Amino acid sequence: MKIKKPLVAIVMGSASDLPIMEEAARVLSNFKVPYEITVSSAHRSPQRTADYAQNASTRGIEVIIAGAGGAAHLAGVMAAHTILPVIGVPLESPLMGLDSLLSIAQMSAGVPVATVAIGNAGARNAGLLAVQILSGKHGELKKSLLNYKASLAKKVEEQAKKVERKS
Amino acid sequence: MKIKKPLVAIVMGSASDLPIMEEAARVLSNFKVPYEITVSSAHRSPQRTADYAQNASTRGIEVIIAGAGGAAHLAGVMAAHTILPVIGVPLESPLMGLDSLLSIAQMSAGVPVATVAIGNAGARNAGLLAVQILSGKHGELKKSLLNYKASLAKKVEEQAKKVERKS
Amino acid sequence: MKIKKPLVAIVMGSASDLPIMEEAARVLSNFKVPYEITVSSAHRSPQRTADYAQNASTRGIEVIIAGAGGAAHLAGVMAAHTILPVIGVPLESPLMGLDSLLSIAQMSAGVPVATVAIGNAGARNAGLLAVQILSGKHGELKKSLLNYKASLAKKVEEQAKKVERKS
Amino acid sequence: MKIKKPLVAIVMGSASDLPIMEEAARVLSNFKVPYEITVSSAHRSPQRTADYAQNASTRGIEVIIAGAGGAAHLAGVMAAHTILPVIGVPLESPLMGLDSLLSIAQMSAGVPVATVAIGNAGARNAGLLAVQILSGKHGELKKSLLNYKASLAKKVEEQAKKVERKS
Amino acid sequence: MKIKKPLVAIVMGSASDLPIMEEAARVLSNFKVPYEITVSSAHRSPQRTADYAQNASTRGIEVIIAGAGGAAHLAGVMAAHTILPVIGVPLESPLMGLDSLLSIAQMSAGVPVATVAIGNAGARNAGLLAVQILSGKHGELKKSLLNYKASLAKKVEEQAKKVERKS
Amino acid sequence: MKIKKPLVAIVMGSASDLPIMEEAARVLSNFKVPYEITVSSAHRSPQRTADYAQNASTRGIEVIIAGAGGAAHLAGVMAAHTILPVIGVPLESPLMGLDSLLSIAQMSAGVPVATVAIGNAGARNAGLLAVQILSGKHGELKKSLLNYKASLAKKVEEQAKKVERKS
Amino acid sequence: MKIKKPLVAIVMGSASDLPIMEEAARVLSNFKVPYEITVSSAHRSPQRTADYAQNASTRGIEVIIAGAGGAAHLAGVMAAHTILPVIGVPLESPLMGLDSLLSIAQMSAGVPVATVAIGNAGARNAGLLAVQILSGKHGELKKSLLNYKASLAKKVEEQAKKVERKS
Amino acid sequence: MKIKKPLVAIVMGSASDLPIMEEAARVLSNFKVPYEITVSSAHRSPQRTADYAQNASTRGIEVIIAGAGGAAHLAGVMAAHTILPVIGVPLESPLMGLDSLLSIAQMSAGVPVATVAIGNAGARNAGLLAVQILSGKHGELKKSLLNYKASLAKKVEEQAKKVERKS
Repeated sequence: MKIKKPLVAIVMGSASDLPIMEEAARVLSNFKVPYEITVSSAHRSPQRTADYAQNASTRGIEVIIAGAGGAAHLAGVMAAHTILPVIGVPLESPLMGLDSLLSIAQMSAGVPVATVAIGNAGARNAGLLAVQILSGKHGELKKSLLNYKASLAKKVEEQAKKVERKS
Repeated sequence: MKIKKPLVAIVMGSASDLPIMEEAARVLSNFKVPYEITVSSAHRSPQRTADYAQNASTRGIEVIIAGAGGAAHLAGVMAAHTILPVIGVPLESPLMGLDSLLSIAQMSAGVPVATVAIGNAGARNAGLLAVQILSGKHGELKKSLLNYKASLAKKVEEQAKKVERKS
Repeated sequence: MKIKKPLVAIVMGSASDLPIMEEAARVLSNFKVPYEITVSSAHRSPQRTADYAQNASTRGIEVIIAGAGGAAHLAGVMAAHTILPVIGVPLESPLMGLDSLLSIAQMSAGVPVATVAIGNAGARNAGLLAVQILSGKHGELKKSLLNYKASLAKKVEEQAKKVERKS
Repeated sequence: MKIKKPLVAIVMGSASDLPIMEEAARVLSNFKVPYEITVSSAHRSPQRTADYAQNASTRGIEVIIAGAGGAAHLAGVMAAHTILPVIGVPLESPLMGLDSLLSIAQMSAGVPVATVAIGNAGARNAGLLAVQILSGKHGELKKSLLNYKASLAKKVEEQAKKVERKS
Repeated sequence: MKIKKPLVAIVMGSASDLPIMEEAARVLSNFKVPYEITVSSAHRSPQRTADYAQNASTRGIEVIIAGAGGAAHLAGVMAAHTILPVIGVPLESPLMGLDSLLSIAQMSAGVPVATVAIGNAGARNAGLLAVQILSGKHGELKKSLLNYKASLAKKVEEQAKKVERKS
Repeated sequence: MKIKKPLVAIVMGSASDLPIMEEAARVLSNFKVPYEITVSSAHRSPQRTADYAQNASTRGIEVIIAGAGGAAHLAGVMAAHTILPVIGVPLESPLMGLDSLLSIAQMSAGVPVATVAIGNAGARNAGLLAVQILSGKHGELKKSLLNYKASLAKKVEEQAKKVERKS
Repeated sequence: MKIKKPLVAIVMGSASDLPIMEEAARVLSNFKVPYEITVSSAHRSPQRTADYAQNASTRGIEVIIAGAGGAAHLAGVMAAHTILPVIGVPLESPLMGLDSLLSIAQMSAGVPVATVAIGNAGARNAGLLAVQILSGKHGELKKSLLNYKASLAKKVEEQAKKVERKS
Repeated sequence: MKIKKPLVAIVMGSASDLPIMEEAARVLSNFKVPYEITVSSAHRSPQRTADYAQNASTRGIEVIIAGAGGAAHLAGVMAAHTILPVIGVPLESPLMGLDSLLSIAQMSAGVPVATVAIGNAGARNAGLLAVQILSGKHGELKKSLLNYKASLAKKVEEQAKKVERKS
């Protein structure tokens, strides 16, 4: 992409979530989508979270990715303060992330959050979903997405070649 | 109590939660604890919710009771904005309130919410827990609580008398 | 919006899902976003589903909303055949929609689905999320979204006025 | 068996599932049932998956075993494209395979999948179930199945001999 | 089919399960597959259940369908006594059939049960799965299955025609 | 039985549990086992509950059946105060009785509770289990139990006769 | 006890369950209750299991303890073949033993199983519950049970002494 | 605080729970709130538990924190014997603490327990909630709570500084 200002904001509730949320960043890097990454907590820094979400659009952000675990309110709280699409990544927890998933997915009518899978797979898919959303406006991403989709199928075929056998 | 200003704030995410949250109000009335009751949504009216929580203490509120269902963020979001004890009531949902319970109980370290049971029983217990908390400062409530506790045991005995039989 | 061709496709696994999925349609209507609505099953009409997803982009569709229940594969299968953002609505089931939610949310890495809440609330939020996604490209929707957001807060205040009382 | 062409197809969503799915292969080997094993993903290689399922019968396959985890659509998607019996093996996941189990078992009416247990035990039982199904047409398998059944009881007796004691 | 002796046995733990298990019978009737239907309980009539399963094959039965709820042992217990494929239908229960599903699906290695969905959809799919299994030996069923599959897709198209609209 | 003093105590947490707990009483009546039935709450009348459990053995009670719902502590609390076998019946709750089941079954080592199924079936089985336990000392119950077991199998056969058909 | 013949039978579905089921044996040893321990599977050795349960009473067994995991049918199947009290121990599984617990606890009316906790704690409590049941007939066990109960309280006090502190 | 007598009692069901419950103690130390810590079991030392709860208020205790796992009755049983606010900490268990959470949170109406999160986070929040409750009467704690709240937000900002980057 030619745009150099971050289009996607990756926010996590705690710095300890970084290794998982990096998966989202990696996807965005691969698609050359500029992003910013930061920490903000719905509960421990509510003002910072509200401000961040309210100002994101003005600063050029077009999609927010928010990862949190347990009573995972971050994505929902950010969605309350912005009209940008917010993608919620449920992080693992002592309850395997089931609490995180329900806290993110079960938003009541009026304020949607786009929920993805628990943990690593979800973080990666959050990055991809952000690219898909951006590709509406930034048409140049469509080609990369098509290439990526083709590469997925190709990798499956490569795996198949290694695994395939007949008894 | 002699105090006439509301000491407890009962907040719910939607007016449709009123029939359940009235259970909390009824308990407070029985203990003659002044309260106020209102609607505020963590997601649909985030600013109102933050303001309400931030100003509650100054207005004389000593305990907040917050009821919500689904991805029930209301109690946690209010707790983020106040140092008052916040009691969270998980309301019923298409998932039987399990999502509400986890969204309220599983708060990460730093911002506690005092979670009670799902639905009616929880709303009533929220009222009682508020009275117990207030009784630390407002000692006159202790006697009422002791009376109430005795009445519970007495009602069990009355029930027992009706039910008891030997074959 | 000035565009008259459908921008959003609402697809459901069975005609019996229509009453719920109408919630998504209603939201799109309110935002004057043109949509089309149809039935296609991942399992009973797989070819139709694949074709529909593959051709959607060419026909001008920019977002797909897919609702299904139980082993709810529809959203994931459509996502497999398109680079458009796909929003999955988990519909209620004998297991309260928990199976639907997990079947939609727990997509493995590479093919994201934007999952919303189970049932009615989810269908409505699917419509809203579609509008938020579209608003990236179709900037005129931003104002409507801001108005909508303001109206949500206003309705809460109106509800509060009716409910509010001090004991 | 005298037939040399694969009668059973073992398909998995990712090469990383091989160690578990080998359990199914091992059972088939023990019963001398020829099989083929490959990788195909419902989401990352949907065309390959559809083609594979559609052509399986023509190529002589009589039973398909499909293993996948998380939002495990592979078995259901293959069943959509074939009239052969499809056995679904729910693989372990961050949610312990509960999501995999529900995604496979809760198929709506019209397109059945024969679901077995989560993980290792399920993969082994998938192999056995395939043999049981094949034994309808290939009667020579019946004797082997009866022998196998007898050997199960015998192994229990051997275990019992080692464990048995009276205090 | 020309065969007139029952090929499929439909067994249920209690006569009260009949309305659900009739769904399986209806499918078999549609495919002109002869079946028998009876009641036997793993726990209340264990000997009858064991005898029934042991003799089924000799009497010409080729597939057993067993429906039960709660601690649903019927399918597993029958599978213990036969080498025929056993299809287990988890019936609804106070726990929504989740206990039934786990009691049937989570069989340990050595004795498989082909589990289908909870309740009505599962009973219908049990009938279909039985037909698919029988079609290996009774090739004339293949054509009916292909017709049925085509009819499923056609019905989706008919539903679509009624539902389809563009805003 | 010749003994006329109650041998079994049926205790429930609330008079509203009576209709379910009557199922246990009915079984005991059928076996002519004398019982007493009363109400006592682990939380609302803890002293009464402790006294009752402590004195039960002295009064001739040999088995206690305790039914409660939600955070169902009654059976565990009674077991803490007696060495008599305590049977716990998990009653239905807004969470379908899953909370009741776990609160009763998951007792830590040292103080067992014999847990039965949720609701009606559990209450009835609690009565039967009490009879089985009593039959160790009161050998005359063994014959009744054998008759009952035979009657179960017979009723299954009668049901079968009504249901049985061949297509 | 003076009786030397086994009074309790400890049965497990697989020899690999021995380390857990030894907890039950250890308790019985401590109470000097003679027991026997063996392996029998509801599914892999159904005849052995039925015979064992049917003959247990004649051989002098007064209580059966059955441990199994997953679709844990062992306790229910044994209960089907005997009028002795059967205690079911749900063993851990890939689903944390939740499937085992439900498969054992949710027995339908007519054939009770006395379910204890999942895993170690449950095995130990199964031993204790067996002693409590036996103590009805074998009164000399009552004193040991009272001593054991006192020792539990004493151990808590000893633990308390080590842990207790005031800040 | 100037008060030197314990204001908070931290009670746990077993000495093995100490490492987790120390988190609560640590928080109280940080706020200079005097506490006492001990072991008492609802089931193994019921009298000790009842006495402790009944006398707590007289000895000057103002809040009780009770931690237990599995069928976690400790908090509920203590609440039955006191009018002090009781905070329940669900400890981890073979079922991930879900049983502990439900056993504590789902208290029926009349006897509330203030439930916090499972495990470590819950223990820490129990300490904080105790301080919030105490701060009603002991106003000097309010300032510390405000400082603590500010420090939480500050730590988030520090974390953010380390993590923040733009691609």
